[in-house]
Amino acid sequence: MPFAIGVDLGGTNLRIAAVDEQGTLLEKVTLGTQVVRGRDYVISEMCDAIRSVSAKYSKTGAMIGVGIGIPGIIDKRTGMLRESPNLPGWHDYPVRDEIESRLNANVVLENDANAAAFGEAWLGAARGRESMCMITLGTGVGGGIVIGGKIWQGMTGMAGEVGHITIDPNGPPCKCGNIGCAEQLASATAIMRMAREAIANGNAPELAKTANDGDVEFNAKFIYNLALQGDEPSRAIFNRVGWALGVLLADLVNVLNLDMYVIGGGVSAAWSMFSPAMFAEIRKRSMVYAATAPAEHVNPPAGASAEVATAPMGRPTVITRALLGSDAGLYGAARLPMAVHEVVEHVEEAKRKLA
Amino acid sequence: MPFAIGVDLGGTNLRIAAVDEQGTLLEKVTLGTQVVRGRDYVISEMCDAIRSVSAKYSKTGAMIGVGIGIPGIIDKRTGMLRESPNLPGWHDYPVRDEIESRLNANVVLENDANAAAFGEAWLGAARGRESMCMITLGTGVGGGIVIGGKIWQGMTGMAGEVGHITIDPNGPPCKCGNIGCAEQLASATAIMRMAREAIANGNAPELAKTANDGDVEFNAKFIYNLALQGDEPSRAIFNRVGWALGVLLADLVNVLNLDMYVIGGGVSAAWSMFSPAMFAEIRKRSMVYAATAPAEHVNPPAGASAEVATAPMGRPTVITRALLGSDAGLYGAARLPMAVHEVVEHVEEAKRKLA
Repeated sequence: MPFAIGVDLGGTNLRIAAVDEQGTLLEKVTLGTQVVRGRDYVISEMCDAIRSVSAKYSKTGAMIGVGIGIPGIIDKRTGMLRESPNLPGWHDYPVRDEIESRLNANVVLENDANAAAFGEAWLGAARGRESMCMITLGTGVGGGIVIGGKIWQGMTGMAGEVGHITIDPNGPPCKCGNIGCAEQLASATAIMRMAREAIANGNAPELAKTANDGDVEFNAKFIYNLALQGDEPSRAIFNRVGWALGVLLADLVNVLNLDMYVIGGGVSAAWSMFSPAMFAEIRKRSMVYAATAPAEHVNPPAGASAEVATAPMGRPTVITRALLGSDAGLYGAARLPMAVHEVVEHVEEAKRKLA
Repeated sequence: MPFAIGVDLGGTNLRIAAVDEQGTLLEKVTLGTQVVRGRDYVISEMCDAIRSVSAKYSKTGAMIGVGIGIPGIIDKRTGMLRESPNLPGWHDYPVRDEIESRLNANVVLENDANAAAFGEAWLGAARGRESMCMITLGTGVGGGIVIGGKIWQGMTGMAGEVGHITIDPNGPPCKCGNIGCAEQLASATAIMRMAREAIANGNAPELAKTANDGDVEFNAKFIYNLALQGDEPSRAIFNRVGWALGVLLADLVNVLNLDMYVIGGGVSAAWSMFSPAMFAEIRKRSMVYAATAPAEHVNPPAGASAEVATAPMGRPTVITRALLGSDAGLYGAARLPMAVHEVVEHVEEAKRKLA
């Protein structure tokens, strides 16, 4: 069966997978991204790994192409990175063309959050949905929109920057230039900042104890565990995260009116702690959500894992957790050249019929 | 030449126009919407006027169909109104089917803000653009998104409700259920509320004088004129409107990355008073706008009527005023059946070729 290679080129890990057309993972390779050894070293290592994985499966199916998810702003037209904080020195370098010529294969670059959305739309929580938006809660907050099986790129490939929607116009400053972005209120980084603020205010004894204990790693996961154990200051932080996500989702539902909104990324593991506040806020703030939510779902049972609004207008707005974890981006990246290939096949077929 | 009928069914006026395929206005009729006389009366009057206008131009071209812009929430699937505050008693009534059977013509219903966006995309400020979003500043704040010549409907036809995006999560309450919506900060209604607040605070003597003068109509236009004359409390109100629109546009640019954002509706006449604050806010808050705006445009000359960001990535993000005034919705409504007709023609043509 034909297959494609998906690459997740993070600042820390370089992951490569072979995925067949049905979405079966054939093989996954994880390497460290040795960014300090420079661009050429990383590209050589990536191409070597792609060749070796690819050779193995080429016996039983054609290699369709390579899709690469990269954190940062990509110029789809030129196949170059415009901005990628995690990959210094890659700026203004013809990444796509270089890899294409080395591998003699079609290469598609995509923003990593878009790739993750594409993966969840293909094989994950939004499988079979006409339209979806994925919000990835990690160190930052990323986003991607998929409509009719295609990533919504916008004019210059920069659509879906949901992490930089203003939630609190007087909130904390963001490195994007805005203040009070979703990223500053709902990311792992935001959770840590809120924890430090609570400690500084002197009313979070458990958090303070942990932060000063050299034996434990003080991170968002630890704060989540404290919240699970009932620590009120930790719970307040996740309520604040849920509130911010509720405002964000209400905005997205009102503007986009999509079928499904999927929440993924590391922080989404804390779903049980932030989702009640999130759903409370969406119900209050989105008239479109209200119109697509039936009365009996306006106050769902606590702890419901997804709020399925079966709709008076025939179709429900669904807000739910991602299913593919950190592999979403890999699957989505592998899907990129397949989608291009399908369009080409489609055009060829139409041409043959019209000839 | 073939033509279509556009209808703008407002709570106050019922306007009907015949528009040909090239966008030439053949005739326009304005009637009062006699809502109090009931649904059947209004529909009969509308159908009579459509028949009479239509008969006149049917000699020289085919009547393609009728498009009707209606304020409120429309169920596109059933052709019924779900909610329309200005048309009480129209709820759960088969508006589209009733008019279709009376006129024996294709009828397309659309939300009025979507119809206005469609008009500006066809013949107005966004003519020739691949994608656009229109924000209509009137009694409320409406919105419509047009992508690739089609209105972006979303899942249930409710997309584009930009007036209910949260700008200030602790702001004034909105009848939609949300608090701090754009509608509560940038509509004519919001301008009046802010004026009353300034008067109540005792620091707006000119506004207070006008409000108490029975001889003048105290409305948003009057406050705009005071601002033009240099009245500081009135200027502060339009700065606040500009600020809110800046936050709103930054959100939209970050999520949608469209070619053009068009601002229309009655309040857009105050462009000179609110746009400097609006552009200042967008530049600060939108990384996507920043990436599509060149350095020399980051501080444009004061009073520039449009901010054209000619882009490092090849295409500029343009934010500008609407061109068609209150006719945008009429033109857009007339375009609705034409667009459907073109799709049908296209499919027929493809079928013939494949047969």
